[in-house]
Amino acid sequence: MTQINVGILGATGMVGQQFIALLSRHAWFKVAWLGASERSAGKKYRDAAAWRLPVALPDEIANLEVQPATPAASAPQLVFSGLDSSVAGEIEGAFAQAGHTIVSNSRNYRMEADVPLMIPEVNGEHLSLLKTQASRGWKGRIVTNPNCSTVVLAMALAPLRQFGLNKVTITTLQAISGAGYPGVASWDILGNVIPFIDGEEHKIETETKKILGCFANGKVEPHPVVISASTTRVAVQNGHTESISVGFDHKPSEDDLINAWSSFKALEGLPTAPAPPVVYLRERNRPQPALDVDRGDGMTVTIGRLRPCPILDYKFIALGHNTIRGAAGVAILNAELMHREGLL
Amino acid sequence: MTQINVGILGATGMVGQQFIALLSRHAWFKVAWLGASERSAGKKYRDAAAWRLPVALPDEIANLEVQPATPAASAPQLVFSGLDSSVAGEIEGAFAQAGHTIVSNSRNYRMEADVPLMIPEVNGEHLSLLKTQASRGWKGRIVTNPNCSTVVLAMALAPLRQFGLNKVTITTLQAISGAGYPGVASWDILGNVIPFIDGEEHKIETETKKILGCFANGKVEPHPVVISASTTRVAVQNGHTESISVGFDHKPSEDDLINAWSSFKALEGLPTAPAPPVVYLRERNRPQPALDVDRGDGMTVTIGRLRPCPILDYKFIALGHNTIRGAAGVAILNAELMHREGLL
Amino acid sequence: MTQINVGILGATGMVGQQFIALLSRHAWFKVAWLGASERSAGKKYRDAAAWRLPVALPDEIANLEVQPATPAASAPQLVFSGLDSSVAGEIEGAFAQAGHTIVSNSRNYRMEADVPLMIPEVNGEHLSLLKTQASRGWKGRIVTNPNCSTVVLAMALAPLRQFGLNKVTITTLQAISGAGYPGVASWDILGNVIPFIDGEEHKIETETKKILGCFANGKVEPHPVVISASTTRVAVQNGHTESISVGFDHKPSEDDLINAWSSFKALEGLPTAPAPPVVYLRERNRPQPALDVDRGDGMTVTIGRLRPCPILDYKFIALGHNTIRGAAGVAILNAELMHREGLL
Amino acid sequence: MTQINVGILGATGMVGQQFIALLSRHAWFKVAWLGASERSAGKKYRDAAAWRLPVALPDEIANLEVQPATPAASAPQLVFSGLDSSVAGEIEGAFAQAGHTIVSNSRNYRMEADVPLMIPEVNGEHLSLLKTQASRGWKGRIVTNPNCSTVVLAMALAPLRQFGLNKVTITTLQAISGAGYPGVASWDILGNVIPFIDGEEHKIETETKKILGCFANGKVEPHPVVISASTTRVAVQNGHTESISVGFDHKPSEDDLINAWSSFKALEGLPTAPAPPVVYLRERNRPQPALDVDRGDGMTVTIGRLRPCPILDYKFIALGHNTIRGAAGVAILNAELMHREGLL
Repeated sequence: MTQINVGILGATGMVGQQFIALLSRHAWFKVAWLGASERSAGKKYRDAAAWRLPVALPDEIANLEVQPATPAASAPQLVFSGLDSSVAGEIEGAFAQAGHTIVSNSRNYRMEADVPLMIPEVNGEHLSLLKTQASRGWKGRIVTNPNCSTVVLAMALAPLRQFGLNKVTITTLQAISGAGYPGVASWDILGNVIPFIDGEEHKIETETKKILGCFANGKVEPHPVVISASTTRVAVQNGHTESISVGFDHKPSEDDLINAWSSFKALEGLPTAPAPPVVYLRERNRPQPALDVDRGDGMTVTIGRLRPCPILDYKFIALGHNTIRGAAGVAILNAELMHREGLL
Repeated sequence: MTQINVGILGATGMVGQQFIALLSRHAWFKVAWLGASERSAGKKYRDAAAWRLPVALPDEIANLEVQPATPAASAPQLVFSGLDSSVAGEIEGAFAQAGHTIVSNSRNYRMEADVPLMIPEVNGEHLSLLKTQASRGWKGRIVTNPNCSTVVLAMALAPLRQFGLNKVTITTLQAISGAGYPGVASWDILGNVIPFIDGEEHKIETETKKILGCFANGKVEPHPVVISASTTRVAVQNGHTESISVGFDHKPSEDDLINAWSSFKALEGLPTAPAPPVVYLRERNRPQPALDVDRGDGMTVTIGRLRPCPILDYKFIALGHNTIRGAAGVAILNAELMHREGLL
Repeated sequence: MTQINVGILGATGMVGQQFIALLSRHAWFKVAWLGASERSAGKKYRDAAAWRLPVALPDEIANLEVQPATPAASAPQLVFSGLDSSVAGEIEGAFAQAGHTIVSNSRNYRMEADVPLMIPEVNGEHLSLLKTQASRGWKGRIVTNPNCSTVVLAMALAPLRQFGLNKVTITTLQAISGAGYPGVASWDILGNVIPFIDGEEHKIETETKKILGCFANGKVEPHPVVISASTTRVAVQNGHTESISVGFDHKPSEDDLINAWSSFKALEGLPTAPAPPVVYLRERNRPQPALDVDRGDGMTVTIGRLRPCPILDYKFIALGHNTIRGAAGVAILNAELMHREGLL
Repeated sequence: MTQINVGILGATGMVGQQFIALLSRHAWFKVAWLGASERSAGKKYRDAAAWRLPVALPDEIANLEVQPATPAASAPQLVFSGLDSSVAGEIEGAFAQAGHTIVSNSRNYRMEADVPLMIPEVNGEHLSLLKTQASRGWKGRIVTNPNCSTVVLAMALAPLRQFGLNKVTITTLQAISGAGYPGVASWDILGNVIPFIDGEEHKIETETKKILGCFANGKVEPHPVVISASTTRVAVQNGHTESISVGFDHKPSEDDLINAWSSFKALEGLPTAPAPPVVYLRERNRPQPALDVDRGDGMTVTIGRLRPCPILDYKFIALGHNTIRGAAGVAILNAELMHREGLL
């Protein structure tokens, strides 16, 4: 099979580096183009970016010359974006206008009515929204994935929709990599908890409803679940831990819930799709970031500690890798699904 | 004023050391007797215990000979207990039988119907339960304080009872010192979150109701609030952070809540009582253990981030020092209150 | 006694905040003026700076209006500087030119032949260099203190000069607060060691020789000791730990060394001078940042683990608080000494 | 190729778990027998041991019944040992007596004159010592590997022997996993440095000389290098960082040293042997545990920051994975070499 050339916008940042790490060994996609800010453009990638991941930076990518983050003939048709939201709106729009397919991790277009907010295992049918983007006059299109903490929550909730999911209370304990680089100052987080992440609670409370919603009549109807989110930052490198309570219209048994998670279907034939996507751990003190975050190469969400909740119906803990399942990995999975659906 | 001699049971442990640190500069009480396990008995305290607190161990305490943890003529009438719960039941009972007043941080007697479970600012009137202990045939008595995470929660909730508090959802992020010493292995917590603390959720859900309850007709009627607790351990030295949602019969305004906390009354004239006991911080990213845990010498509970909760009525963050306000400090305050009430 | 008004340049940074914390309870000096960058000037201090220390920011300082970092009539005669070295050279020079006494923590003037590089207990006589600054045409003057890791080393070595100290090998394990704020990114240091601090090894190898040198004939003759430094950053909030080997012309006994440290003389009558300045700990696993960094309110250097070195003569561990003894505290002590000597 | 059945003594500990993790995917060896203390014997491994590594425990090992740590017919001929040194002496001796080949990570036999202390790339010829073990009356034999911090040092020094290596000063910054489990209490190391590891400095100073020594006339002549070691514990999960200075009889150039490391020969054909065994990193702030510890699947030692030393000749930083290259991995490599040499 011939590999498809892809580009990466925001290639020097935390999510950009994770895109490179994951794509450097990808079966379908080959990194052929890197775009970044003016400060980096014109340099070899190895000189433009301080590589900060524990896996080696491949030489062929290290030697790529970083390009300006503007549409150009040299840029591949498929472009992943890990751009900072301060610039993503304009740049991603310009690329879509110019005919590129943008698969973005940025928040700017997530809540637009005609933009799919995707987790392939959860709402693949939302890709149908893409047809409605034509009215923007774009030659290309934009697909987005959710905020990192939202991805973990939505993966845990999606299999539970069948029981009439109606209420969710969540407190997150989020890893520092979710804040990008340099992100959180070490002085602020070493031996500490920061009980505030700007804008994060609103994203969880709104994005989740869109992701879990149904596509019908050319649009996505948000799921009616009501969500209350509290978000905190803890001294963990990778992995968002979430303490979740859920209420239902039709209260299931604990076994029903575990069965629902365990039977949540993997996407077959997509290189980045883990099988299974969700794993329930029966040990009483799991999941833990240090032990479970890399399951399924960082694409599996682990769940544990299911027990009754005296306020809603049940409570449990969920965990996912925030820069893989919660960012670069889910974006790549989006592109894989689009490729299989003939949308690239 | 002549100082009152006091003893400490479990003097070598984490809470025992905190008792020593706090009492070594106390205006009323003077540490005159240290009790610990057979392994330590007969040694000077400096040889029996590896001192692990950043404040200096006073020489006069370092040179005390550790005694067996059994009632003896040499033991003072007032004895604080930081014993491990595996032995506290029997030993504290024996001391009470022998006529000592035991002010205990251990969990063994907390939920006994005739034992006060005390936070002086919250439920001083529960001391009236002491009269009912006579029926045990004890010459002495036992007073207890709550579990460390419960103290912080109860301090935050007590001022809100006036609004018909009926529901509470809480997720804790607890410091390692709460597990004693050696407690949590560094391999388990460095860069990690452990989403399980054995027995802790049950303690929060039950002890809080007793603390907030009313004393009437010779007994304590538990408060009717329903509580759902999830507890986690994080890589913090001292300070339990709590993400709390609350529901009310009579929904107050945000200002009502802040006023309730701010006007929560300090106990005047007690050396360890902080003024004010609860502080509301208006910065959007507070309280934080690294910045706020030592307020009021570790006796003040700080609260922040009050905002509406889409599931219950409001949510907020609370923080308290788990080995001071949550253990040794609150026990000392219990003894101070008893002294003022003529109960020593 | 009337307090002396003082100013602080670089008031919003890590060292600037430490100046404020220490001076807010100072017997002689009163913070009356705060200077910072254009971005902060004109704002109240509480709005210009995110206060990041665990002690409370006093209201009277919080309400001061931050001034531009330029000499002005309103600035007090005595000005402490915690400016970043990228701007300190020019600004401190301008203040000295305009008649101010600058007591600086910045590196820019440290190695100038006519500028004292001071640790009061070590080389108070170097203040005589100030007379030679007249030839610069300054109406004022500049006094500096060493780099934070150098201060700890020089305090440990100063009492050993009597034995013909000739060689030193040192590896440091330095706290993150030494890098300022935001300083080290949490991604870079959590669970990690960074074996490089830009310029630090050169500072240790050169500044130490000047500090330990003799003042004679109007200049400071550097001490002939040869130093080899390796510097690393570790995940510690405050406190530089140093692994040190030393060689001598006249090899002393271990007792000689411990006596030398223990008899190192405190400066009497200066509010910030700890007594004793150096403490030798006999426990085999000390000093440790978590337990010992705050000795003497952060001004005492602790030493331990003295033992023979198979390569040089002896080796030991030293520890000091890098933003107090190693920065703001030593600067304040410099000013106190100057005041006593009639140099303010 | 038929796999060779192997056993693991001390299977539940930190090093025992690392043996299992590495051997579960090994081409030559198959874990068929697990031995541990009486407390664990008779249980399935999954019930006897809390699995604490981030890789999954294979089901076929999880279901093995743990055996007592005594020689038995069921135990394979080749047995790896990760036993605690408090019991390793007696148990390993009994197994050797009974005819087993013990490949041990424990310290008990390391310095015995007739026991090879091995790092295969460094001193494979020391296996010739095995012949001399016959005089003990053992039917089997014992081979050992060095202490974890010693392995990293010896790998860095071995290629430098050609220049007349004569002096070494080393300060280590060691990971918590080196202390086993539960090992270091989190209270002791979080945000801290512990400048003491019991017995570690002596091991480095003596074991290194044996490893680097020559085998001649039926015995190992220790290398004459003089070593001064200082050891500290830091808050790192895996990876010992070492700050090293070296002196030579024939001072080489920096390029000579880098060439020596880069040309240090890999062992071909052994599954666990990394190629290359030593890597020199030219970035100025490397190696770092968080970025480099897993190179070569944890078997590669990384070196960086080579620069002149004002006391000895050069200084540099070395890093290695302490439970892989420094323990279980090097032991497995020892067994692989023995297999190739026909010694199993």
